[in-house]
Amino acid sequence: MAYADTRFLTRRRALSARLAGMRIDEMLVTNLNHVRYLSGFSGSQGALVLAKDLTAEISTDGRYTTQIGEEVPDIEAIIERPSPQALLKRIEGPRRVGFEAAYVSVADLEKLQAVCQEDVTLVPVTGLIEEIRLTKDNTERLRLIEVAELASQAFDELIAAGELAVGRSERDIAADLEHRMRRLGAERPSFDTIVASGPHSAKPHHTAGDRILRRGDLVILDFGAHSRGFNSDMTRTVVMGEADDFSREVYDIVLRAQLAGIEAATPGTRLVDVDAAARSVIEEAGYGDYFVHSTGHGIGLEVHEGPWASQHGEGTLAEHMTLTIEPGIYVPGRGGVRIEDTVLITQGPARIITPARKELRVV
Amino acid sequence: MAYADTRFLTRRRALSARLAGMRIDEMLVTNLNHVRYLSGFSGSQGALVLAKDLTAEISTDGRYTTQIGEEVPDIEAIIERPSPQALLKRIEGPRRVGFEAAYVSVADLEKLQAVCQEDVTLVPVTGLIEEIRLTKDNTERLRLIEVAELASQAFDELIAAGELAVGRSERDIAADLEHRMRRLGAERPSFDTIVASGPHSAKPHHTAGDRILRRGDLVILDFGAHSRGFNSDMTRTVVMGEADDFSREVYDIVLRAQLAGIEAATPGTRLVDVDAAARSVIEEAGYGDYFVHSTGHGIGLEVHEGPWASQHGEGTLAEHMTLTIEPGIYVPGRGGVRIEDTVLITQGPARIITPARKELRVV
Repeated sequence: MAYADTRFLTRRRALSARLAGMRIDEMLVTNLNHVRYLSGFSGSQGALVLAKDLTAEISTDGRYTTQIGEEVPDIEAIIERPSPQALLKRIEGPRRVGFEAAYVSVADLEKLQAVCQEDVTLVPVTGLIEEIRLTKDNTERLRLIEVAELASQAFDELIAAGELAVGRSERDIAADLEHRMRRLGAERPSFDTIVASGPHSAKPHHTAGDRILRRGDLVILDFGAHSRGFNSDMTRTVVMGEADDFSREVYDIVLRAQLAGIEAATPGTRLVDVDAAARSVIEEAGYGDYFVHSTGHGIGLEVHEGPWASQHGEGTLAEHMTLTIEPGIYVPGRGGVRIEDTVLITQGPARIITPARKELRVV
Repeated sequence: MAYADTRFLTRRRALSARLAGMRIDEMLVTNLNHVRYLSGFSGSQGALVLAKDLTAEISTDGRYTTQIGEEVPDIEAIIERPSPQALLKRIEGPRRVGFEAAYVSVADLEKLQAVCQEDVTLVPVTGLIEEIRLTKDNTERLRLIEVAELASQAFDELIAAGELAVGRSERDIAADLEHRMRRLGAERPSFDTIVASGPHSAKPHHTAGDRILRRGDLVILDFGAHSRGFNSDMTRTVVMGEADDFSREVYDIVLRAQLAGIEAATPGTRLVDVDAAARSVIEEAGYGDYFVHSTGHGIGLEVHEGPWASQHGEGTLAEHMTLTIEPGIYVPGRGGVRIEDTVLITQGPARIITPARKELRVV
C-alpha cells in the first residue's frame, strides 16, 4: 500500500468514534466536501462509507479510476456510479446506516432505500461531520492561511497597479481582482466578488455591476479565493480621491468595532459576546440601526460554516476555530463601510490571516 | 401595479396548467433557479408558491425587500425567512401542496412538515419544472445566444492577443480567458475552465494546473460564461507550434464526428441517434474505445440539464431545445481532442451559437 497521509485517518477516527455513541454501525458520506475531508478524494462524483470499527470503502466512476488510486491509496475503491447506491447495496444487515440528511434530497433518499438489503436501516444524521470540522487541524490551518494570504496579496497588487481607479466600472475592477487571485494560484473566487461603489456601498448584498467609480465614492470590496478545497473571505473599504467627513467618521467607527470584535475572539468566549463586542461600538456611536447583519462566521471547506457570531449564535469559541469579523454600517443614500478579516482562534490573541492593512486608504 | 414582463406569467401558466392533472392544489418552488425562472427574482434566499388557479405568493428576507419589489412587481411578497416555511405556514387546508423532491433535503422536509397546518399534505414532485424548461422561450434563447457569443468572442480575443502560447501555464491561460469573459460581461465562469495540454489532453476531466505548454502539444480549452442566470459551454482544441500526423488525424475525425452530430440535431430525432451520428464516425475510424463520454446535454439555467444525447438517452429533440455536441478522442499517453458547440434546435438545421471557427488552429 502506498503512503497515506495520516490526517485523513485521524479525521475518520474522530467520526467513527462518534458513531458508536449514536447506535450507528456505518456512516454513508455523500457530501463531496466531506468525502474530500475524510479521504482526500477531490473528484466530482463519489461517496464514502465508514464503519464504527474504522473500516471504509470509497466509490467513484470510471473518469476518476486513476485519480482515486493516487489520492486515496488506503481505502478500497469501488468503481461504479452512482456511488452512494454502489456502496449501500454492498452492506449486509443487520446494520443501522447513517446518511447525511442535510444533503440527501427526498428524491435521492428513495433511490437509496431502493437498493438497501433487508435489515439495513437508514438513519438520518445532521451536523455530525460539521461538528468535527469546527476546529481545524494543522493541514487545514495551513491551507486556510495560504488561501487567505493569496487573496490579501491580490488586493494589495490591485491597489499598487492602479486598477482600483475613478472612471473604471465595478465589474472591471472585480474582474481584475479575480484575475490576480487566479494568477496567484486560486482555482476560482470563493463567491461572487463584491465591488460596491458610491450608493451601492449602502447595499450589503450588491455584487459588481456597470457603475463607474467617481471621486468621493466609498467602495466596498468583499472577495475570497478558493484553492484545493479551501476558501477565504475578506473585505476592505476604500475612498476614491478624497474622503468627506461622513466617510471618515463611519470608517473610524467600523474599524474600532472590527478591532473590538477581534479582541473578543478568544477561546471560551461566547459567540454572542463576540458579536456584542463589535456591535456595541457601532450602537454607542449611534449607528446601531445601520448594522443590519451579524458579525461573522466560520470558514473552511465552505465559505459560510459554523461557528456563527451573531446576536443569536449558540456556543463558545475554541482554539483552532476560524471566524470572520466583519461589522458594517450602511446608510441608504449616503454609503456604507464594511471591514472584514478572517482570524484563527489561538490560545493567545486571535491570529489575523488576511493581512492587507486597514487604516483608511484614499486611492 | 408596475409593468410586469409577461414571460414570467406565461411560464407560471404552463406550470399551473400541469398541476390540475396531478391533483396538486399548490406548488412550493424552492430551487432558486426555478424561482427566478417563474418570477424574475434573482436573490440568494427565497421561495414561491403557485396555485392551480395561477394565484401566487413569493417570499424573501429583509436584504432583498427593494429588489423583489423591482424584479417581481406582480406577485405579493412576504418578507420573512426562511422563505419556504414562511409561505407554507400561510396555506390553509384542505390542500395538496407539491414540493421539489429533487432539491429539498430530508432534513429540510422535516422543517417544512413542522409548519404545515392540518389538512395540508406535502406531495413529492420531480422533473415538473425541468420538463417545462426543456424548450426555451424567446427571452431564454436571446440570453443563451448572448452568453455563448460572449464566451466565443473571449476565446478569439485570447488567441488574437497571443495569450495562448508556448511557455505559459495552463492556469495562467485559464485565468486570462476567464478575465476576458468577465470583462465582456460575464458574472463568472459557468464551470471551472479546462485547459488540458499535452498528456493532460487525454484526461477528459482535467481542469487547469501548473503544466507549461510546449511546442507540439494538443491543448483542449473547455469553458463557459454565466450571466443573468444563463450559462454557455464550448470547447476548442488547438495545437502549439506544429501539428504532427497523430494530432491532424484525430482532429479531423473528431471534427467530422462533431459536424455529423450537429447535422443530426433536428426536431423529432431521437437523442440516441444524435449520439450515434457522432459516435459512429469515431468508431468507423477505429477510435471508438477512446470516446469515453456521451455526445451532449442541454444547457440553460443549469450548465448540464436535459435533453441528454447519450447511448442511453430517452426521448427526441424538439424545436427550441438546446444541445451541446461535444465528441472527443482521448488516447492515454498521446493526447486528446474535443470539439464542442452549443446549438439551438430549429425547424431547419441546428443553429450554432458558439461561432469560434473550428478548422485546426496551429497557434
